[in-house]
Amino acid sequence: MTWRIELVGTRQPSVIVGGEGALALLAERAAMVREAGLRTFVVTDENVKAAWGGSMAPLISGSSGVEGLRVLSPGEAGKSAASAAICWDWLSKAGARRDDIVVAFGGGMVGDLAGFVAATYLRGVRLWQVPTTLLSQVDSSVGGKVAVNLPNGKNLVGAFHQPELVVIYPGFLSTLSASEYSSGLGEVVKYALLSDGRLLDVLETKTAAILARDPATLSSIVEQCVAFKAAVVEEDETDRGRRAILNLGHTFGHALESTLGYHVLPHGAAVSLGLLAALAVSEVVVGLPTDTRARVVRLLANLGLPTRMPGLTFEPILEAMGRDKKATAAGIGFVCLDSIGAPRWGVRVDDETLRRGLKAITP
Amino acid sequence: MTWRIELVGTRQPSVIVGGEGALALLAERAAMVREAGLRTFVVTDENVKAAWGGSMAPLISGSSGVEGLRVLSPGEAGKSAASAAICWDWLSKAGARRDDIVVAFGGGMVGDLAGFVAATYLRGVRLWQVPTTLLSQVDSSVGGKVAVNLPNGKNLVGAFHQPELVVIYPGFLSTLSASEYSSGLGEVVKYALLSDGRLLDVLETKTAAILARDPATLSSIVEQCVAFKAAVVEEDETDRGRRAILNLGHTFGHALESTLGYHVLPHGAAVSLGLLAALAVSEVVVGLPTDTRARVVRLLANLGLPTRMPGLTFEPILEAMGRDKKATAAGIGFVCLDSIGAPRWGVRVDDETLRRGLKAITP
Repeated sequence: MTWRIELVGTRQPSVIVGGEGALALLAERAAMVREAGLRTFVVTDENVKAAWGGSMAPLISGSSGVEGLRVLSPGEAGKSAASAAICWDWLSKAGARRDDIVVAFGGGMVGDLAGFVAATYLRGVRLWQVPTTLLSQVDSSVGGKVAVNLPNGKNLVGAFHQPELVVIYPGFLSTLSASEYSSGLGEVVKYALLSDGRLLDVLETKTAAILARDPATLSSIVEQCVAFKAAVVEEDETDRGRRAILNLGHTFGHALESTLGYHVLPHGAAVSLGLLAALAVSEVVVGLPTDTRARVVRLLANLGLPTRMPGLTFEPILEAMGRDKKATAAGIGFVCLDSIGAPRWGVRVDDETLRRGLKAITP
Repeated sequence: MTWRIELVGTRQPSVIVGGEGALALLAERAAMVREAGLRTFVVTDENVKAAWGGSMAPLISGSSGVEGLRVLSPGEAGKSAASAAICWDWLSKAGARRDDIVVAFGGGMVGDLAGFVAATYLRGVRLWQVPTTLLSQVDSSVGGKVAVNLPNGKNLVGAFHQPELVVIYPGFLSTLSASEYSSGLGEVVKYALLSDGRLLDVLETKTAAILARDPATLSSIVEQCVAFKAAVVEEDETDRGRRAILNLGHTFGHALESTLGYHVLPHGAAVSLGLLAALAVSEVVVGLPTDTRARVVRLLANLGLPTRMPGLTFEPILEAMGRDKKATAAGIGFVCLDSIGAPRWGVRVDDETLRRGLKAITP
């Protein structure tokens, strides 16, 4: 089973293919572009190379003494301006051209960094994304947002640059750590809340298959998440309006991550808690029925995600939310949920209400 | 006299205003955005600050201990990824937001660097260009190409990011060095060859006023160059087709600069020689009448630009042309002139013909 979704309303078209046959298709495409005299430059990290180096091999072009593969140290620390500079120098030394292709083979860190490099080298070269984590498959590899971190915050420097091709192979998910896998599930639940309710039903009824990482179940879930995201991105590629809904739970989530430390709170846990806080805020601000949050608490708990975080001190979290990069002079635009499948964005929320959101997740 | 040109077919609209009243308009706009609670972050260099610091003052916002002004060392060396990283950190420490404005106040180096920073900080913030050299007024400040250099070559990393506002004040030109002024004149002659012949007549008949830097004459010439460039950019913002014509003379010019060294050959001189080589190639490839080149040699000489460079060795120059960043797997796309005002791009030119171009400029 292979599925295919096309993003056509964007500055550059983007084709997303997924399923068991995706890796074979990737190798075939790489052979085609090489026959056309073009080169592919692969960026990955040590962990992904150790697990999937064999699948990478057909993608690596050699060239005049410069290797067509760049292996980064894993982890967010490598997603820096300094790493981008190293990759730019690598491409320029290899004589990479406008019609050559950067292949981001790895999780969100690799995709964001290599994507930013591809967006800016020669003012933009072709980009393929091969996301190997659940988080990057359902979220960061699709839609063209690429970025690096600054010492002062995550993703503060970046671009919008659509990958020409995204290849989503469910087999990659079998080698993820429990924490990496959970990180993606938090994001999947976000899509379930934003979309029409069918995905939420699937997550509730197929929890066991999800936890067992059944490839067919996951492939179908990832497809639904990607289809939803693709439609949102087509409508608002550069994040001036409706794309903000994809931030549901993330204003809280990012503030929790940065306040508690990224190593203390994995992204999936932060999103899980952030979603619940956002639902609590939605109850106050737009009258979301309270049984929705109870239902989501059950689902998140069944998926192994945290639903409470003891001992939060509110003030530093509220301060971090004020520094959120989506903030403008007019304040934070907050994403609320009227009901399942009915988000609204740009909602002004006062600090007292944000505190009520935090109270909902700290016992 | 103030003139105004709007770029509307681009991803983001861009308004270009020029003339004696341009600086007053800039100060007024800055006051308006500050009244709206937004901030302006000015990037400049030491030379421009020394000459025009007073005109900058109304543009500088203070903020919680972080100065709203960043003064770079002058020269291309500062247009690096490392400088961009310093500017990103500066903006993030100042808490600059999406609707705040980066103001590039200086020549091409400042505009390219600050523009790249604005294109990428928070995936793009607002940008104003205040070009202070003739070269940046007629060329680099308009059209949204921004970039930094790599050790391996100029402008290898960048983006397309339209300035919301470009303010072109002819008074800035009075403080330019002879070499900086000449650099711009080379580019002006390029526009005269690309456009319909009227600008070429103006340059020939008003040579004395141009050399005397008469503000009214210059303002009108700059307006014509910008109007021509704006129309080309509207048609092909991201440089996939016709925008290539703006590269007339530059494939040779860049190769001469990089082979001889940027300090040996100022940009204007390189463009002057490059234009003549491109005209010689055009005679061979597309039958440009030879009297055109004779006419252009006279004009360039009258404007104080070089028309011959003794002792060129051809092979390294041809090699540098092969490494041009516009090159694709299919080869260099060369810009030729059928006649004044009739350029064509993407022309395949063999090495023997390129050598004939170089022979035309080396005695």
